Amino acid sequence: MKALVKETAGVGMTLKDVPTPKIGANDVLIRVRHAGVCGTDLHIWEWDAWASGRLKPPVVIGHEFAGEIAELGVEAKATGLVSVGDKVTAEGHIICGHCRPCRTGQGHVCERTQIIGVDRDGAFAEYIAMPVSNVMKLGNIPTDIGAIMDPMGNAVHTALEGMVAGNTVFVIGCGPIGCFAIGVAKAAGASKVFASDFSEGRRELARKMGADVTFDPAKDDVVAKVRELSGTNGVDMVLEMSGHPAGHATAFDAVRLGGRINFLGTPAKSTDVNFAKSIIFKGLTLYGVTGRKMYTTWEEMFALLRGGKLDPRPVVTHRFPMEGMAEAIELIKNGKAGKVILEI
Amino acid sequence: MKALVKETAGVGMTLKDVPTPKIGANDVLIRVRHAGVCGTDLHIWEWDAWASGRLKPPVVIGHEFAGEIAELGVEAKATGLVSVGDKVTAEGHIICGHCRPCRTGQGHVCERTQIIGVDRDGAFAEYIAMPVSNVMKLGNIPTDIGAIMDPMGNAVHTALEGMVAGNTVFVIGCGPIGCFAIGVAKAAGASKVFASDFSEGRRELARKMGADVTFDPAKDDVVAKVRELSGTNGVDMVLEMSGHPAGHATAFDAVRLGGRINFLGTPAKSTDVNFAKSIIFKGLTLYGVTGRKMYTTWEEMFALLRGGKLDPRPVVTHRFPMEGMAEAIELIKNGKAGKVILEI
Amino acid sequence: MKALVKETAGVGMTLKDVPTPKIGANDVLIRVRHAGVCGTDLHIWEWDAWASGRLKPPVVIGHEFAGEIAELGVEAKATGLVSVGDKVTAEGHIICGHCRPCRTGQGHVCERTQIIGVDRDGAFAEYIAMPVSNVMKLGNIPTDIGAIMDPMGNAVHTALEGMVAGNTVFVIGCGPIGCFAIGVAKAAGASKVFASDFSEGRRELARKMGADVTFDPAKDDVVAKVRELSGTNGVDMVLEMSGHPAGHATAFDAVRLGGRINFLGTPAKSTDVNFAKSIIFKGLTLYGVTGRKMYTTWEEMFALLRGGKLDPRPVVTHRFPMEGMAEAIELIKNGKAGKVILEI
Amino acid sequence: MKALVKETAGVGMTLKDVPTPKIGANDVLIRVRHAGVCGTDLHIWEWDAWASGRLKPPVVIGHEFAGEIAELGVEAKATGLVSVGDKVTAEGHIICGHCRPCRTGQGHVCERTQIIGVDRDGAFAEYIAMPVSNVMKLGNIPTDIGAIMDPMGNAVHTALEGMVAGNTVFVIGCGPIGCFAIGVAKAAGASKVFASDFSEGRRELARKMGADVTFDPAKDDVVAKVRELSGTNGVDMVLEMSGHPAGHATAFDAVRLGGRINFLGTPAKSTDVNFAKSIIFKGLTLYGVTGRKMYTTWEEMFALLRGGKLDPRPVVTHRFPMEGMAEAIELIKNGKAGKVILEI
Repeated sequence: MKALVKETAGVGMTLKDVPTPKIGANDVLIRVRHAGVCGTDLHIWEWDAWASGRLKPPVVIGHEFAGEIAELGVEAKATGLVSVGDKVTAEGHIICGHCRPCRTGQGHVCERTQIIGVDRDGAFAEYIAMPVSNVMKLGNIPTDIGAIMDPMGNAVHTALEGMVAGNTVFVIGCGPIGCFAIGVAKAAGASKVFASDFSEGRRELARKMGADVTFDPAKDDVVAKVRELSGTNGVDMVLEMSGHPAGHATAFDAVRLGGRINFLGTPAKSTDVNFAKSIIFKGLTLYGVTGRKMYTTWEEMFALLRGGKLDPRPVVTHRFPMEGMAEAIELIKNGKAGKVILEI
Repeated sequence: MKALVKETAGVGMTLKDVPTPKIGANDVLIRVRHAGVCGTDLHIWEWDAWASGRLKPPVVIGHEFAGEIAELGVEAKATGLVSVGDKVTAEGHIICGHCRPCRTGQGHVCERTQIIGVDRDGAFAEYIAMPVSNVMKLGNIPTDIGAIMDPMGNAVHTALEGMVAGNTVFVIGCGPIGCFAIGVAKAAGASKVFASDFSEGRRELARKMGADVTFDPAKDDVVAKVRELSGTNGVDMVLEMSGHPAGHATAFDAVRLGGRINFLGTPAKSTDVNFAKSIIFKGLTLYGVTGRKMYTTWEEMFALLRGGKLDPRPVVTHRFPMEGMAEAIELIKNGKAGKVILEI
Repeated sequence: MKALVKETAGVGMTLKDVPTPKIGANDVLIRVRHAGVCGTDLHIWEWDAWASGRLKPPVVIGHEFAGEIAELGVEAKATGLVSVGDKVTAEGHIICGHCRPCRTGQGHVCERTQIIGVDRDGAFAEYIAMPVSNVMKLGNIPTDIGAIMDPMGNAVHTALEGMVAGNTVFVIGCGPIGCFAIGVAKAAGASKVFASDFSEGRRELARKMGADVTFDPAKDDVVAKVRELSGTNGVDMVLEMSGHPAGHATAFDAVRLGGRINFLGTPAKSTDVNFAKSIIFKGLTLYGVTGRKMYTTWEEMFALLRGGKLDPRPVVTHRFPMEGMAEAIELIKNGKAGKVILEI
Repeated sequence: MKALVKETAGVGMTLKDVPTPKIGANDVLIRVRHAGVCGTDLHIWEWDAWASGRLKPPVVIGHEFAGEIAELGVEAKATGLVSVGDKVTAEGHIICGHCRPCRTGQGHVCERTQIIGVDRDGAFAEYIAMPVSNVMKLGNIPTDIGAIMDPMGNAVHTALEGMVAGNTVFVIGCGPIGCFAIGVAKAAGASKVFASDFSEGRRELARKMGADVTFDPAKDDVVAKVRELSGTNGVDMVLEMSGHPAGHATAFDAVRLGGRINFLGTPAKSTDVNFAKSIIFKGLTLYGVTGRKMYTTWEEMFALLRGGKLDPRPVVTHRFPMEGMAEAIELIKNGKAGKVILEI
C-alpha cells in the first residue's frame, strides 16, 4: 500500500509502498479515506528536538483519520459491534488499561500511551490497524469530518472542562483547535465568546465559528477590552490555545477572580509565572489538556455533531492528495491554513 | 398603597389599601412594576391543604416581581451598590445565612427560609420591602422579564444541575417552568430536547422554546419514542416538571442507565417507586429542586439573557392589572395560560 | 475440577465435577483459593423470582473470589502486566466497553453486563476464566481478603459517592456491606458515623467497624436521635443498605435539608414516596449504587487497604469448604453471619 | 483598650491604648481572648514591599482570634442566633456579597474583600467589631484552638479540594499550615501522607500530625522516594505550602499523570514553568488557595474538630502576652516556631 513514511532521521517524509499492516485478534483493519494534517506532523516533518527525541524511524505518520473497516480480528469480530464496510474514526491514543490513570478514568494520560503516527505506524496510508476498542462508527457523518474529530475532540475536551453555560469564555489563539473550541463554547451556552489571534485570516475563521468579538493582540489592549465586555474583573474561563508565554500572561490577566484557565497550546519554551499574584490570590483553577477523555469527549462530540449544534466545516480550508504533503506542510508552517485534509 | 391580600382563611384574595411597608437598615423599598402569577398563588387562592397549613392571614400575596428602588435603608445604602431608581428584581427566599445548608452553599434549602407572599408580605402590591442582599439590578432587562426570573430561575436550576452539553434532555410537563427549561437546555448545548404534555397548546409553546420533538402522552408511546430517538436505552437527563406519579413513572423508564432525573414538579400525592429496578440497578442520580441556587442560578440566568441565548417571551401569554387577578387565576386553573403577568 | 453448580431450575446447588474452563486470547485462568458467599447466592439457592427469571442452568455459581493465575491467553500475556502465579482478585462484571455508559465512565451499568456466577460460569470452583482487563494483582493482600473485595467495593462505591470528610454519615442496615461501609466512612473522615440494625449481633459488628453510635429500630426513635446527635436537622449523608421500605422512610426523615442518600440495599417490593416533602422541598441528591466503579472504586479500596486505613476482617465470621455450602446458606438466611468465606 | 498597632510606615508595631471599636447594626463586639500570629504579621512587622503597598497606618494588626461576645448591634441581635457571652471565632475576610465571585459561591475571592488586621482594624486587641455573618460559635472548643481556626481553615481548604480518601498526598513545606494540612489529609483518608521540609523540628511536627514519611530536601532525592513509595509515577495530590520555586519544581515532578496540585504557599518571586512538560502533557489540575471557603471550609473544620478527627494542638509551640510580640515575631522569622498564640 502507499504511505507517507518518516524513513530516517532528518527533514521531510517519503511517499512509498509499504506492506499492508497485519491485524491482531483485537484489531480491525481500516481503509483510510481522509486524514487530517496536524501541527504535530509539522514537528515530525521538520525533525525538531521533540520529534527526534521521540520517533524511531521508519514509521508511517498521521494520527487523525477516518475510513471504512476492511477486516476484523477474531476477538474484534466477536464483539458483534462492528462490521466490514462500517465507516469509522478512531482515538489515536492506544492505552494500557491497567495503570493508575487508566484505572481512574484518566486514560488520556495513560503511563504507557502509544500514539499512532508517532510511536507506531499511523494513518497517512491506505490502511491502518487499530484496536477495536479505539474505533467508533460514524453513521451519517462523512469521513472528511470523521478525519478531524481527533483535533475537534481536543477542543471539546478543552471547552467542556468547566462550566460553560451562562459563563464568558475567552479563546487565546485561533488555529484549527482554537476555532473548533469557539464553536463548542457557543454550542454549550457561553454567554459571550471572545477570541484573539495575530492573524486576520484566523480571526475571520473565529468569527465564522461564532466568536462574538475578536481581538488583535498587536493592536488591541486585549485584557482591558475583555474586562470591559465581560462586565466584571475578567472572563469566567480562558482556553489557552496559543502555546506562547504571551498567551499565558494574557490568560492570567484576563481571567476573573475564582476563574479557570484550560491550557492546550504546547509552548516550545518555559513561562515565568508569578504564582502569588496570578494563581493563588486569584483563587484560580488551571487544567492541562492532553488528548481526549476516553471516551466521554467522543460521546459529547458525536452528540453535538449529530444534534446539529456544531459545524466544523468552516475550519477546513485545504484538501490534498498524499502527493501534496509538502505543500500542506508549507501552508501550516506559514499559518496560512485552517485545517488541512489529505484525501487518500 | 394597593395590594392583593389574603385577608382570612378561605377562597380568594382582596384588592385593598394597606400601609406602605417600612424598611429596616438592610432593606430597600421597591416600587413594583410587574409581577408573575404562579401555581403557588393558585393554591393560595383556593386555600388548599398546603396553603391553609402554612399561611397566616392577613398577608400580601405574590413572590415573582420586578420594579424600581424607591428608598434605601442605612446599611443597604452603605453598600454603595444600589441606588434609588435602579430597576431590580429579587430572590424571594429570605434566608438566615447561619444554618448548615446556608453555610455549605445550599441557602436555597435554608432551615429558616421565609418566602415573600407566603410567610411574609409579598409583591402583588405597589411597594415591597426586600433585604438588599436579595436584590439584583436588571440593567437593560425590562421589568416584565425581570418579573418572571423567579420561575425562570427554577428552570435554570433544574436544567443546569447535571451535564447538558452533548447530552439528550427530556422535559416532562410543559407549563411555564417546563417551557423555560426547554429554552435553557437548548441554550446549554443539549443535543436533542424532547418534551411531553397532554395539552397541544403547551406542546406548541414547547416547540417555540426549542423542543426538537414533542409527545402527547395520551396518544404516543412516549418511552419507546424517546429511546428510539435518543439512539440508546434512554435519555441522559430527565427534567420532571409535571408533578404527577405518571410523570415519575415515565421519567424512570425513559432515562438511560447511569442517567439523571431532576424533579421540580411538586405532586399532591405519593408515588410508588421500585427502588431496585428504577434507581439502584439503573445507577441513577436524582435531585430535588427547590428555588434557585443563591446566587449561582441568578448569575447564569442573567448571563444567558444578556448574551441573547435565552428568550423567555414566548412563554408569556397574558397580562392583567391587579383588578384582573380572578381572571388570571381562572386561566391558570384551566391550563389555558403560559405565564401570566400582572401590571402594577 | 470441582464446582458448585446450579444444575436445574429449583432449590439448591450441586457440588460436582465439571470441565476446567477454556480461556480465550484476552483471558487468564485463575486457580480460586477463597470465595465469598453473598446474599445473591442465597437468592440463587432458593431460586426466587429474580433468580429464576435471570439464570440459565447449568451455571457455576459465585462472583466474589481471589486466587492465583494458572495460565494466560496470548493477548493477556502480551500485556506484560500479569504472570502465572500472581495472586489476584477480579471485578465480576464483564462489560462491553462500547455502550454509552461504558463510554462515559459508567461501565458499572453497562447495557450488556455479564455477571460471573449469574450470567456465565462463576467462582465457586477450582478454576475460573476471566478477561485480563478485569483482573487485579493483590500483592501482599491475602486471598481471603481479596475474595471479599467485591462486596467491600460495593461499600466503597456507596460511601465515597459524596463528601464524607467533615460530614455525618448514617448507615441503615448492618449486614456485611453496611459494616464495610461504616469502616470506609470512618477512614474517609466522617465526623460521626451512626448505624442502625434490628440485630444486636450486627450492631456489635458495626461498632467493631467504627460506628460511633448504633440504634435498634425496634426500640429507639432513630430519627429523633440522629437529629439530636448530628446537631442540625439531620445527617449529611445516609447510606441505605437495608433494602426495606422502612429503611427508605427512615433515610428520608433522617437526612438533612440539602443532604444525600445513596441506595444500595435492593428491596423486594416497592416503596411509597412523597416526592414533594421527602425529595423536592428537602433539595436532596439520591444515587443508586450498582457494582463498583470500574476501576476508580478498586483503586480507592486497594489504597485504603494498603495504607492500613480499612480493616475488613471483623466482618468475616465464618469459613467453610465447598462441601459446607448448605450450612453457609442457612447461616446467611437466618441473619446469623457476617461475611462467609469458602476455602477452595 | 490595649492593642498592637502599626502606627506609621516602617518596622515594628506598638502596644498602646486605643478607643474600643464602635459596632454597626450588623456587628458584634468581641472580647478577644486568644489570637494567632501569622507569617502575614511578620511581613507587616517588617514592612516589606507587600505590606507597605497595602496597609494604611494606623491599623490594629491581627486576623486570627477567638473570644466572647460582649455586645450586639440591633440587626445582629435580631438574628436570634448569638448572645452576649457566647464563645466565638470569626472569618477574617469581610466580603461584599454582591460581586460575581460572591454570587457564585466563591466569596473567598470577593473583589472587594477587606481583611481584618490588614485593611481594617484587627484582633491583636482587647476588643474587635465583626459582622455577625462572619461569626461562629465555638461551643466546647476552647478559645486557644478557636484562635487558630483561620490558618487551620487554610489547611482544610487546601487539603479537601480534590479527592483525598484512598489517595496519596504529599505536603511540601511543614510550617503551621502544612502541619495542619497533614492532619486533615490523614483524617480524610489519605492512604499515605508524605511531607518535606528543610527543618528537622518541622519534620518532627509533621510526623506528630500524622505524616507517614518525611523528607529532607537537603539530603533526600525527594521525587525518587515519593515515586517509589507511592507505587506509581507519583502522588495523586500535592499540597504546596512552601511558596518557593524549588517547592513548585518538586511539586510538578512528584505529582502523577492526571494528578492535582493545590498551591497555598505565596512566593516572593516568580517561577519558571515548562507548561508543556509539567502541566499539559501530565494532564494536571492546579488550584490556587485563598482563605477559606465561606463557609463550607468552616463547617468541615468544626465537624473534624468536634468528631475528634483532627487535633491541632501539637502545632502550637509558643504562647505570649501582647507584650511579647517582638519575641514572637523573632521566633517565626527564624523558623523556630510552630504556631504562636497571643493570650489577650
